[in-house]
Amino acid sequence: MQLIVQKFGGTSVADTARIKMAAKRATNTFSNGNKVVVVVSARGKTTDELLALAYEIDKRPSTRELDMLLSTGEQISCALMAIAIHSLGFPAVSFSGRQIGITTDSSHTKARIVNMDANRITTELSRNKIVVIAGYQGVDENDNITTLGRGGSDTTAVAIAALLKADMCDIFTDVDGIYTSDPRIVPEARKLTQISYDEILELASLGAQVLNVRSIEVAKKYNVPLRVRPSFNDGPGTLICREVGEMEKIVVSGATVTKNEAKITLTGIPDRPGSAAKIFQELAEAKINVDVIIQNVSSNGLADVTFTVLKDDLTLALETAERIKNKICATSITADDKIAKLSIVGIGMRSHSGIAEDLFRTLADEEINIQMISTSEIKISCVIDEECADRALIAVHKAFKLDQA
Amino acid sequence: MQLIVQKFGGTSVADTARIKMAAKRATNTFSNGNKVVVVVSARGKTTDELLALAYEIDKRPSTRELDMLLSTGEQISCALMAIAIHSLGFPAVSFSGRQIGITTDSSHTKARIVNMDANRITTELSRNKIVVIAGYQGVDENDNITTLGRGGSDTTAVAIAALLKADMCDIFTDVDGIYTSDPRIVPEARKLTQISYDEILELASLGAQVLNVRSIEVAKKYNVPLRVRPSFNDGPGTLICREVGEMEKIVVSGATVTKNEAKITLTGIPDRPGSAAKIFQELAEAKINVDVIIQNVSSNGLADVTFTVLKDDLTLALETAERIKNKICATSITADDKIAKLSIVGIGMRSHSGIAEDLFRTLADEEINIQMISTSEIKISCVIDEECADRALIAVHKAFKLDQA
Repeated sequence: MQLIVQKFGGTSVADTARIKMAAKRATNTFSNGNKVVVVVSARGKTTDELLALAYEIDKRPSTRELDMLLSTGEQISCALMAIAIHSLGFPAVSFSGRQIGITTDSSHTKARIVNMDANRITTELSRNKIVVIAGYQGVDENDNITTLGRGGSDTTAVAIAALLKADMCDIFTDVDGIYTSDPRIVPEARKLTQISYDEILELASLGAQVLNVRSIEVAKKYNVPLRVRPSFNDGPGTLICREVGEMEKIVVSGATVTKNEAKITLTGIPDRPGSAAKIFQELAEAKINVDVIIQNVSSNGLADVTFTVLKDDLTLALETAERIKNKICATSITADDKIAKLSIVGIGMRSHSGIAEDLFRTLADEEINIQMISTSEIKISCVIDEECADRALIAVHKAFKLDQA
Repeated sequence: MQLIVQKFGGTSVADTARIKMAAKRATNTFSNGNKVVVVVSARGKTTDELLALAYEIDKRPSTRELDMLLSTGEQISCALMAIAIHSLGFPAVSFSGRQIGITTDSSHTKARIVNMDANRITTELSRNKIVVIAGYQGVDENDNITTLGRGGSDTTAVAIAALLKADMCDIFTDVDGIYTSDPRIVPEARKLTQISYDEILELASLGAQVLNVRSIEVAKKYNVPLRVRPSFNDGPGTLICREVGEMEKIVVSGATVTKNEAKITLTGIPDRPGSAAKIFQELAEAKINVDVIIQNVSSNGLADVTFTVLKDDLTLALETAERIKNKICATSITADDKIAKLSIVGIGMRSHSGIAEDLFRTLADEEINIQMISTSEIKISCVIDEECADRALIAVHKAFKLDQA
């Protein structure tokens, strides 16, 4: 007997027919002699519809009230899922996040879990029930309802799996698993059988978008085996787990491209200590996330600093940069939002040299200019012209033989 | 400064435009220097839509899960109402039934309030906030979400008003107030300025359907002044309060007709002690509510018993009657679902004689046959042919001069 956590996303519970399909999957797992905990998201477009209502009333709705509003989406799903499991002749009971003691901080709409209580879940599991839980939500210490942000149901599922020391946490989605690249851009993209936490963390934050980043961080921390599986067929999906020896052999596991960043350049900065610190301190105070940063010092003693931010933050970032410009006596500011970031990820990079050269050569052969470079232990990213993004991804995917198992 | 509880029903919060109108009403009351608690129902058809989803999945959904599902409707309304109040520049905070400590028994879908906690409401009121509360819901002692049944938001509002010793509980609806009769049948029906708890209790249980019966019982018990007011204009509505002297002068306050009952007759019952007890005991065990009962004993020593039940219960009642028939050696069973019950209500009846005669003569003048009669201290009901119902109501309304103030 195993303890399995199954999480069904919005498309997997979009209507009553799909809820029944998901219920069937849960009861099959239960019938095979396992204990089953189901975590559900809001149905399909429910969250967007509720948000639209709030914005119809007020352009800046209170985040506390938004959480009160949005948390109902998952509550509806979990009640319907329990009813669907009953209709198949199996015992089930649904709980909201609060009812199983998920307490969070008070950062409404993006709260973090601070505590959970396994008691009520284990009691119902020992009564041989399938336990259905509303994802994405909790309460703060003052009993206000909070939500964990988009993708928060993944975090709920993984946190419960960690708490219960589950044997597996299955994340059912509308994709077959994790791919070496985006199949819409690279038709040769291949589904991965398994991938390490670290690699998927780099891929997720780079835009693979299959899994919420925080849920992977929690899975890694508590060593929860995670599977991304398709809802609508019996495919095995992709296993996400701790790094194992054989993974080392694969130098590059995946390649991605993101187009949601813009770059800003401050030029002609007198080369004085503390200039860089001033720039990024002010950006941080404005809550702007900076991704890639490069700095060059030219022969005349003036420096240029270029950094990338999310396109959504560009207006605010430019306003902030304008203020900084005067403080640090820079001569000008330029911005470009027609950029893309191409990245390759792989644990094997740690022990293999020459990967960066291979990447740069591939882009050179395609006559694609590299504007910025950023690297981590298991990742290399290049900022390039947005127009070249898809072509670059296809070339890189081929160059690193990602289409071959 | 007064403390005012304002309850807005489903049609009064059906869409964002109406939620804003309701919010405007609450903030006007607040601006006039009052403390304001707002209780809201689910938007328009939300409850029906959620129920439809549940029944799509299972014909007999668990009542615990239904409560989990349905309680979200009011939670959505109260979050949106708080957002609407904020948008008008006023402070507000929303709470679910549980968050303000409404505990109930465990009768899911028709729970009764057993306890409430004024603490969180009074704290927020003292912080000068408008407190918005989700009606219709609570939690049982095991922290399962419960609902109070249709019309339960009225009960929430009145219970809160009683707990806080509010100066007024305004129930905003889509009607102008309580009428002497149904204006759709009797065009001369007149809006009442005030009416006593007892009269409205008889009218409500007779089908006036403006207010939930339990909410009136609670209002009466705790002497909560209640006003039924229109949402969409500034009309004063109808005040429901304790009986006052001047009410005595009005002999008949209202006349109603209901068409939702059927009658069953058991004939040829040997006149032995205990026969009647057997009949109504078995019906009670089958959870069938019996309304009017009459019994005649004929010259041959055999008795006939006729009683009315809700049309919805007729099939079950007939099955039960069939079993009883054999036990008490009755000769036959007949049923008729083409009946109507006409009633007149008025506190003045207590001290005025001849009202019944006036009623019977009015019906006789209209050549309407009276099949059954039932009376209470402040009410007289006659069961008549369904076809004559509207004509009878118009005649009675006129005979008792209900169109005249």
